[in-house]
Amino acid sequence: MKVNVVVTPKAAVLDPQGAAVRDAMQHLGMPEVRSVRIGKFLEIEIDEKAANLEARLNDLCRDLLSNPVIEDFQVHGLESAK
Amino acid sequence: MKVNVVVTPKAAVLDPQGAAVRDAMQHLGMPEVRSVRIGKFLEIEIDEKAANLEARLNDLCRDLLSNPVIEDFQVHGLESAK
Repeated sequence: MKVNVVVTPKAAVLDPQGAAVRDAMQHLGMPEVRSVRIGKFLEIEIDEKAANLEARLNDLCRDLLSNPVIEDFQVHGLESAK
Repeated sequence: MKVNVVVTPKAAVLDPQGAAVRDAMQHLGMPEVRSVRIGKFLEIEIDEKAANLEARLNDLCRDLLSNPVIEDFQVHGLESAK
């Protein structure tokens, strides 16, 4: 079973890496790019549907995979396994 | 208009960051995690549907946003704007 977790910087947080990529894209042939924000994408392969999986995965996303002060996370792929 | 680009390491490429996260998850209450692979997630805001957008965006993904030797990329969100 495959679960994807997307960790993105919160809207209020500066993202200098994204700003650098935006400037580079504007200079390399895409002047219509308005903003770029860069986050992390995690493909997690899990053995099977275990008890309480969603709650434990959300806890780990909060505690290990993201910094909740500056980042948000979204979990995709758990719904289809229910 | 919002386009998401996901850059992931190719399946044949070692992902030590992902392996470290997998071990940490296994030790922190999710022993059923089999593998983790970590990529980049880019949220790109583009002004409007410009000419030849898809081709130029794919070129930039290949040349700037990913390293095609070790990474794959996927563009999401362009289909809905057509």
